[in-house]
Amino acid sequence: MNRLEKLQSRIKEAADCGIITDEVNRRYFTGMKSSAGTVLVFPEESYLIIDFRYIEKARNTVRDCTVLLEENGAGKYAQLNELIEKHGAKTIAIDSQTCTVSDLAAYRKQLKAEIPADGKFGVIIRQLRMVKTSDETDKMIAAQRIAEAGLEHMLDFIKVGRTEKEIQLELDYYMLSHGAEALSFDTIALSGPNTSLPHGVPSERKVQSGEFVLMDFGAVVDGYHSDMTRTVCVGEPTEKMRKVYDIVLRAQQAGLDAVKAGISGKDLDAAARDLIAAEGYGDAFGHSLGHGVGMEIHEQPYASPSSKFVLPENSIITVEPGIYLEGEFGVRIEDFVIVKAGGCENMTLAGKELICI
Amino acid sequence: MNRLEKLQSRIKEAADCGIITDEVNRRYFTGMKSSAGTVLVFPEESYLIIDFRYIEKARNTVRDCTVLLEENGAGKYAQLNELIEKHGAKTIAIDSQTCTVSDLAAYRKQLKAEIPADGKFGVIIRQLRMVKTSDETDKMIAAQRIAEAGLEHMLDFIKVGRTEKEIQLELDYYMLSHGAEALSFDTIALSGPNTSLPHGVPSERKVQSGEFVLMDFGAVVDGYHSDMTRTVCVGEPTEKMRKVYDIVLRAQQAGLDAVKAGISGKDLDAAARDLIAAEGYGDAFGHSLGHGVGMEIHEQPYASPSSKFVLPENSIITVEPGIYLEGEFGVRIEDFVIVKAGGCENMTLAGKELICI
Repeated sequence: MNRLEKLQSRIKEAADCGIITDEVNRRYFTGMKSSAGTVLVFPEESYLIIDFRYIEKARNTVRDCTVLLEENGAGKYAQLNELIEKHGAKTIAIDSQTCTVSDLAAYRKQLKAEIPADGKFGVIIRQLRMVKTSDETDKMIAAQRIAEAGLEHMLDFIKVGRTEKEIQLELDYYMLSHGAEALSFDTIALSGPNTSLPHGVPSERKVQSGEFVLMDFGAVVDGYHSDMTRTVCVGEPTEKMRKVYDIVLRAQQAGLDAVKAGISGKDLDAAARDLIAAEGYGDAFGHSLGHGVGMEIHEQPYASPSSKFVLPENSIITVEPGIYLEGEFGVRIEDFVIVKAGGCENMTLAGKELICI
Repeated sequence: MNRLEKLQSRIKEAADCGIITDEVNRRYFTGMKSSAGTVLVFPEESYLIIDFRYIEKARNTVRDCTVLLEENGAGKYAQLNELIEKHGAKTIAIDSQTCTVSDLAAYRKQLKAEIPADGKFGVIIRQLRMVKTSDETDKMIAAQRIAEAGLEHMLDFIKVGRTEKEIQLELDYYMLSHGAEALSFDTIALSGPNTSLPHGVPSERKVQSGEFVLMDFGAVVDGYHSDMTRTVCVGEPTEKMRKVYDIVLRAQQAGLDAVKAGISGKDLDAAARDLIAAEGYGDAFGHSLGHGVGMEIHEQPYASPSSKFVLPENSIITVEPGIYLEGEFGVRIEDFVIVKAGGCENMTLAGKELICI
């Protein structure tokens, strides 16, 4: 079954038909990237209704559903109603996790069917997306290889006097000119005391000797993201820097060792967090341990102290503990892995021993 | 009044307080970029509740509201309820245009106040954002200057044999290494018959002699976007290419001539569309004439055949007619302007006569 057929086979759990309008889910189910368009899913057939800007490409590339040119303005609703009537649908599911309150209000006003908005359709979509096929992990591995080649390149580029922005730009350019269709997210490249900002933005600050440089980055291949973080030292680290790095590295290994199908996101998080807490740095690890990756950089499942997820086989999870000491420095080490029965397959090959440039 | 004070002065039109959680509006009102965080707006005071990853930066940079560290998990709702109770709020407004159906359901379950979701708060937010101050247009002009320098650079770079992806990457790298904090959107760089795809994605196709190259691109400066499109010819164009280019150029000028405070988005669209239709290419201009630009690349107001907007003074609008001939070629020319009483101020300085490289 293709992705839309899988969704079609489950749509009745949510409603007579389902409507998808967000970019990521539209691309996941149709295979085509676009900034607009509506996917309408019935048990027996699906449609992509897409505007003039994309229609030529959609007709040439989308194979798993019927492609229709979207009518302008309110004409779109008449088009949807015609299909809803044709298939005899009485109820329509929306994806509560991406549908806005105003879009739902417009659908309820314009469409001739009941729209429950109970969240079931979104759950089904994410259950399908969470478990990856080897086709999908192959793309993420290809993305990760580009990112790792970027890291290798950066080890030659980074030196005293380079700014954070220069490091970011060089890494981005490397990935984009070596096969990445996009960046997974705004690359984080921080130095010295800025490394204590878990989501800091690269600045004009120049790297100085004896400082950490933290890079969190990823590449996208055919819509699939990679994600990794490495913290390297320029010059000689202090004893405290070495000690903290070692704790984070051991916590990361403890997290990796704990990953397996069936573990809860909460227990996985604890495997790394407990080690950091036992070393006295519990308060300095304020974010969660990991998140799923796929067509979105953050998707299900999640590993955190409050996670309700159980990790299914062939889902993806990052393992990224960190210790952040305000005004001093921060360390984060991140790999991303495929969850397997009894363990995991690490898609990240880059080494993790502390590198001093 | 700063932006939050303006919003605070109008919040009672929607509810006793308002909640903002989307990235763009959060940045607009607090001045800080982040991927998470909640802004809570009361008539007398506003708060930014933000997690561990951003708290250090928020405390150092956000001045117009009270910054609080977000509690983990369900603790966030207790925090919100405490503030709601402290300020005696009985109703909470959400931004219907960005709040998802599931987030609204969670707020309704967790927060101790009524949440109407009638769309009023979103309207107020966009009325404020639509009218730009000179501070804001200065940033867009700075972004546009970077983009135009990029175009100049590209006129030397583009030649027979370059691929669309190479053109895209070179233009992106130029803008990012000359002051752009980001790209306004995925740069469109198309050649030959691909130019008939209004939103095509750059491919490995190589530019050939006698073909159009269409570039639609922009830079971001301090959160503010620019947007421009130019279509150039590599080698000698055919007579038909020259003729179509000339029609689009005249339609674009007709659009620019029509822009003034008080015109409707529908009339503005018609000013350019009627000219194209009169030349017999009405069916080949399938998208709308223009959109607002600011902290989002597409924002209010809109100029299209079904637009309900009237353009206020100091709003921004693109003027971008196009003619797309499937299997042959397409032409689009786009500037973006500040709407003024009786006319407009064009922020785009790049020439528009057909350039043959």
